[in-house]
Amino acid sequence: MYVQNIAGDQILRRRRPLRSDQEMLFSRGFSRISRTSLNRSRWLFSFQSKREQLLPSAHLQSPLDSTNTVTAGGCREPYCWGGSSFHAIGRQIHHQSSSVVEDGLDPFLLVENELSILANRLRSMVVAEVPKLASAAEYFFKMGVEGKRFRPTVLLLMATALNVHIPGPPSEKVIDALSEELRKRQQRIAEITEMIHVASLLHDDVLDDADTRRGIGSLNFVMGNKLAVLAGDFLLSRACVALASLKNTEVVSLLATVVEHLVTGETMQMTTTSEQRCSMEYYLQKTYYKTASLISNSCKAIALLAGQTTEVSMLAYEYGKNLGLAFQLIDDVLDFTGTSMSLGKGSLTDIRHGIITAPILYAIEEFPQLRAVVDRGLDNPADVDLILDYLGKSQGIQRTQELAAKHANLASAAIDSLPESDDEDVRRSRRALVDLTHRVITRTK
Amino acid sequence: MYVQNIAGDQILRRRRPLRSDQEMLFSRGFSRISRTSLNRSRWLFSFQSKREQLLPSAHLQSPLDSTNTVTAGGCREPYCWGGSSFHAIGRQIHHQSSSVVEDGLDPFLLVENELSILANRLRSMVVAEVPKLASAAEYFFKMGVEGKRFRPTVLLLMATALNVHIPGPPSEKVIDALSEELRKRQQRIAEITEMIHVASLLHDDVLDDADTRRGIGSLNFVMGNKLAVLAGDFLLSRACVALASLKNTEVVSLLATVVEHLVTGETMQMTTTSEQRCSMEYYLQKTYYKTASLISNSCKAIALLAGQTTEVSMLAYEYGKNLGLAFQLIDDVLDFTGTSMSLGKGSLTDIRHGIITAPILYAIEEFPQLRAVVDRGLDNPADVDLILDYLGKSQGIQRTQELAAKHANLASAAIDSLPESDDEDVRRSRRALVDLTHRVITRTK
Repeated sequence: MYVQNIAGDQILRRRRPLRSDQEMLFSRGFSRISRTSLNRSRWLFSFQSKREQLLPSAHLQSPLDSTNTVTAGGCREPYCWGGSSFHAIGRQIHHQSSSVVEDGLDPFLLVENELSILANRLRSMVVAEVPKLASAAEYFFKMGVEGKRFRPTVLLLMATALNVHIPGPPSEKVIDALSEELRKRQQRIAEITEMIHVASLLHDDVLDDADTRRGIGSLNFVMGNKLAVLAGDFLLSRACVALASLKNTEVVSLLATVVEHLVTGETMQMTTTSEQRCSMEYYLQKTYYKTASLISNSCKAIALLAGQTTEVSMLAYEYGKNLGLAFQLIDDVLDFTGTSMSLGKGSLTDIRHGIITAPILYAIEEFPQLRAVVDRGLDNPADVDLILDYLGKSQGIQRTQELAAKHANLASAAIDSLPESDDEDVRRSRRALVDLTHRVITRTK
Repeated sequence: MYVQNIAGDQILRRRRPLRSDQEMLFSRGFSRISRTSLNRSRWLFSFQSKREQLLPSAHLQSPLDSTNTVTAGGCREPYCWGGSSFHAIGRQIHHQSSSVVEDGLDPFLLVENELSILANRLRSMVVAEVPKLASAAEYFFKMGVEGKRFRPTVLLLMATALNVHIPGPPSEKVIDALSEELRKRQQRIAEITEMIHVASLLHDDVLDDADTRRGIGSLNFVMGNKLAVLAGDFLLSRACVALASLKNTEVVSLLATVVEHLVTGETMQMTTTSEQRCSMEYYLQKTYYKTASLISNSCKAIALLAGQTTEVSMLAYEYGKNLGLAFQLIDDVLDFTGTSMSLGKGSLTDIRHGIITAPILYAIEEFPQLRAVVDRGLDNPADVDLILDYLGKSQGIQRTQELAAKHANLASAAIDSLPESDDEDVRRSRRALVDLTHRVITRTK
């Protein structure tokens, strides 16, 4: 099932939260409440072992492998929670935020220098022999169009958060050399992840006939579809060569599977039946493949390179998965609520392309008559307006934000479940990772 | 340099062969001359160590990394040979053919059963979760399987040709188990190679003009292109997962580099300056990337999995490279001489798309005034007709066939340079590989 069978869900399965709770949760100003350190959310899961709650049931677990399916459109039990327990989540995120405020640290600033090195390396890694291919491949790695650098930030923070002292080596020098080598290998994962991400963007833009990306002309628009396809292939092949150089076939396999997930997610979005388009389960599965698989599996790769246990590797995976899902859910909200400028690609993009996301799925639950409008295909702008009217009347936006907050909390709880460490760098990186879960759900662009 | 610095070239660097020699070489009926076994072409290279001659200078050596460049268009010394030495090549191939006739073996029949197993495995390897993606991946696969099955045949024959008795294990049973395991891993290489090949075909087929694509407006047509991109990505990711499962990072790196070469070759073809379009060096480099890199590097992968020495691995690579180049040169000839039916994609495809291949490059050498016609872009059918007139008057077709024959001989010589074996299976597979070099240059479709 998508809604994982963890104790927290039992608390969370209520009706919608009060508006005041929601406002508190999503407001950007937070009062300074003293930090509860790494224990801050433990009360929520106190009656069950956290690791038991958080460990997924299988390798590369899909968020949907369950029998307790959740379908919007009035056919099944709606997926919802709220009220007082949501208030609790609000408080919890409140605490996380204040801890970061105390630190005075920005997660992006923590790894700023390393990100610059990484950006330079990326530019050198995508140099191609043929000038046209080189300029196509470099296109999104140029200064100023690198995007938010969200993924490399997460991965570098995760690398530090999982730092363990390697026992046994004879001297400090050996420890330093080993640590440095490991860090370099983990940086490679961050670079490879960016290459896979950009390759998928290039191919997606061809598929969508997109004309802009990151505020500039999309590559297919500027250089043609064929070159965009080739540049994407080129990045994938370079990523694969870089992966092979890490000489860890489990990691190669993990990230190759991510490429397959990206393709599967894109195909799922392109080829839906009416039933699938209105299914929350299908939507979440697709979202995992399209967005969460890359970050979750690369987090896991960071842990595997560090020689972490299966348990810790899966916590890293869980963090990435839930952060990725939260990120996409908020993206889907912003597609309705943001402005064209803040979204960078124009508001209402999904709905105008007939893509049904969580806010509409929740709206359909409240107003089942919308299903017929969706089934007509949304080619008619009047139908899009009708959908938007109903969305405004519904709790769709709010409930999507709540779902995002739930995943943000699960991500945060995964970090809390890591083996304790008294290393201040490790603790600071963990706090930054938790802070990111908050930023993801409160962002406005 | 492209023309490798081997003794054979010194003999071969003459003017054009007599027409009677050429007819002898390319006729399909061969008299039965007694086979000279694996020594049949040694006289040609007798004054220099064969291995020294054939070993390329570097890993993944490009056919062009030389200073002795060869440019068509009248600027440089033309690249040609012929006369009596070509007669010798004719005789040499004559011998190869008769050896196979004596065996009564068809290279494809030798691995027929294994090819069927491989085809079934391939179909199961490309099964996808999403029905549309599954049918796209499978569909193009079925087409590939019904094709020549040239690459898997070469690779399975190469696997047997490089068989060595593993010394040391305690019992026959252990030897059998190890051999069986190795064979399975080598079969995986053949499957992966086919997946990469089909993926590149799918992406090559994507239309490059976005406006034309949108202009057609047919949903099926657009879906076709989208699915071509996605199915190609899917096959690449499955190939990468399969590669990772072999747990040999050198092999992963080798085949990832092939994908990069395929992309580079395609981009070289798409983005040429006038100078590059009329350069034989550029043409051959592009041909290596687009056609020869896949088969040469997968031959090398077969050798690496078998634990062969660097020297033997490079001979396998040399065989694949020269066979691939010969194959493509004949393809370029058939684009002019074949009928639409025998080519399977309509004659004159390249020239009508403004792609200049070896026959025209040789024609330009003889008639430099053609260069201006080529520079006009070949959009005008009258210009295409003019080019064809000159091609008919020139030795372009003949010299391309000669170049193909030279590469076929180099491929054959690489097989002859393998360490001797008295295993009849090994010897038969080597003869079949040599026979393939002949079939490649005498084929009419």
